[in-house]
Amino acid sequence: MAAPSLDVVGIGNAIVDVIAQADDAFIARQGLVKGAMQLIDAARAEALYAEMGPGIEMSGGSAGNTMAGIASLGGQGAYIGKVAEDQLGTVYAHDMRAIGVRFETAPLVAGPPTARSLILVTPDAQRTMNTFLGACIELGPEDIDRALIERAQVTYLEGYLFDPPRAKAAFQKAAEIAHAAGRKVSLTLSDAFCVERYRDEFRALIEGHIDILFANESEITALYETGEFDKALAVVRGKCEIAALTRSERGSYVVTADATHTVPAVTVAKLVDTTGAGDLYASGFLFGLTHGRDLVTCGRLGSLAAAEVIGHYGARPEASLKTLAKEAGLI
Amino acid sequence: MAAPSLDVVGIGNAIVDVIAQADDAFIARQGLVKGAMQLIDAARAEALYAEMGPGIEMSGGSAGNTMAGIASLGGQGAYIGKVAEDQLGTVYAHDMRAIGVRFETAPLVAGPPTARSLILVTPDAQRTMNTFLGACIELGPEDIDRALIERAQVTYLEGYLFDPPRAKAAFQKAAEIAHAAGRKVSLTLSDAFCVERYRDEFRALIEGHIDILFANESEITALYETGEFDKALAVVRGKCEIAALTRSERGSYVVTADATHTVPAVTVAKLVDTTGAGDLYASGFLFGLTHGRDLVTCGRLGSLAAAEVIGHYGARPEASLKTLAKEAGLI
Repeated sequence: MAAPSLDVVGIGNAIVDVIAQADDAFIARQGLVKGAMQLIDAARAEALYAEMGPGIEMSGGSAGNTMAGIASLGGQGAYIGKVAEDQLGTVYAHDMRAIGVRFETAPLVAGPPTARSLILVTPDAQRTMNTFLGACIELGPEDIDRALIERAQVTYLEGYLFDPPRAKAAFQKAAEIAHAAGRKVSLTLSDAFCVERYRDEFRALIEGHIDILFANESEITALYETGEFDKALAVVRGKCEIAALTRSERGSYVVTADATHTVPAVTVAKLVDTTGAGDLYASGFLFGLTHGRDLVTCGRLGSLAAAEVIGHYGARPEASLKTLAKEAGLI
Repeated sequence: MAAPSLDVVGIGNAIVDVIAQADDAFIARQGLVKGAMQLIDAARAEALYAEMGPGIEMSGGSAGNTMAGIASLGGQGAYIGKVAEDQLGTVYAHDMRAIGVRFETAPLVAGPPTARSLILVTPDAQRTMNTFLGACIELGPEDIDRALIERAQVTYLEGYLFDPPRAKAAFQKAAEIAHAAGRKVSLTLSDAFCVERYRDEFRALIEGHIDILFANESEITALYETGEFDKALAVVRGKCEIAALTRSERGSYVVTADATHTVPAVTVAKLVDTTGAGDLYASGFLFGLTHGRDLVTCGRLGSLAAAEVIGHYGARPEASLKTLAKEAGLI
């Protein structure tokens, strides 16, 4: 088989973010769990939208954000995700291609509209996400392009893919193709509530099917049902080749079978909106990994990319991560 | 007639901004005039969109931005503008109502989609706007709500309204209603190229039909065909009750029949995107005027509002202008 010509192919829910400011009282009044991602149906999306403040619309989706970060670092990537044939779907496809990420998934012609996530950012920079999955519910195995998966060093999957009914099969198909081609498979656990929903499946996946795992503290402790980060770290060790565990301002831990590398966070002048922090950490890490960097440098690239995105509204980089990484001497 | 219950009603082209970063080479390659607003048709909009970088979508439109600023200051406002019955039109209407601006104009059901402006922001923070008018071309006199105009202290009109074919008649109808009700009529010249297109009509309007005029240096000098700001200032004096002339970082000049008040600009820590600077100056000024402030305070409120919006991407305030104005001791 030919050498991989792509660094990463990301598969995820293709979602347009609608980002608005909100105060804690609004979050409480709407009965939302601050910091979490909650799935909502069309009626609830309409009702919540009517109540929330003015928004800015930006392409998002966890794996989509990660691919945007990889492109910003100068990496070669592709994305698989389902939008509808509507204005927001056009925006989503444009934004992917405009940053140089290959995106060929056929849009849904009849059915629900392009997915959106109503993201409420509180003054403490936390984001509370309310996602209407829309067209994402139609992503299925037929959308997995075998040749594309085979061409990528890493196939990156978001845990959120377990929510829509047919995406899990797409996920499994992609992972099988990748491994059959000798490529790596990476997973992010996405969200602690997502872990609660699919704990057993995620545990089974990680043992034997995932090479590189991303999780933050609340996700990894939810996965192994322990309140202690150190315990969760000990349990995950060796279950996959690499587990990159993030702890916000306390930095990250890169765990392999026989070592734990600690990586400091990059401090930011002003924390504005934490949306995308985890997604961008994965961008930096996977860019480093697919470019032959050691694990500490991978982690530092992750910290750098995450720091850029939390300094402004929105989950995709505004500045060139390639320039920032060069300035920091990381590439 | 009852006392006015609204401060300002704004009438303009209802446009969703698509904001992307671009370098000077891109502006040159696309044959664009940096800093200007250019009208484009659907085919050109599609071609330019395909070439430009990833965008963020935000409700915009000159008078729409001004109304957002007035609402952010705590003022009572309404907006008249034409969107289509599509996703971007829904976004536009939501954003207006979410900030507390009354917006009841019937959306266009069949016809072109909601207008968008492809805004390219260069590293010097200048914005180059490429506007596809879409549904705006159907705004007409039938959209002018007499009772609404009569209820507002000021009817605010954007010069850009002269571009779509039927909006001029709407403009004139609104101005007549306002004056018949003893209210004020305000106009912004919008853009130097817009002035070139409608110079004679704007000159005729200003003498006798406009009470409060907003223009920046390039617009007022284009209007009176002089290269010198001082000369243009002398010519406009007395033609309308108040002319508020802005000169970017050099501040503004508030010109009445017998006085010229100079108002300093508010310095910003980091200039990011000048989109909306003029629109927000008008917000501050008109808020002050409709709340009985002296002309220098009106100008300072304008400077404060403009400074907020040029410190981030997008043409509408992110921070509460009311809070900022209180902190500055202006309200």
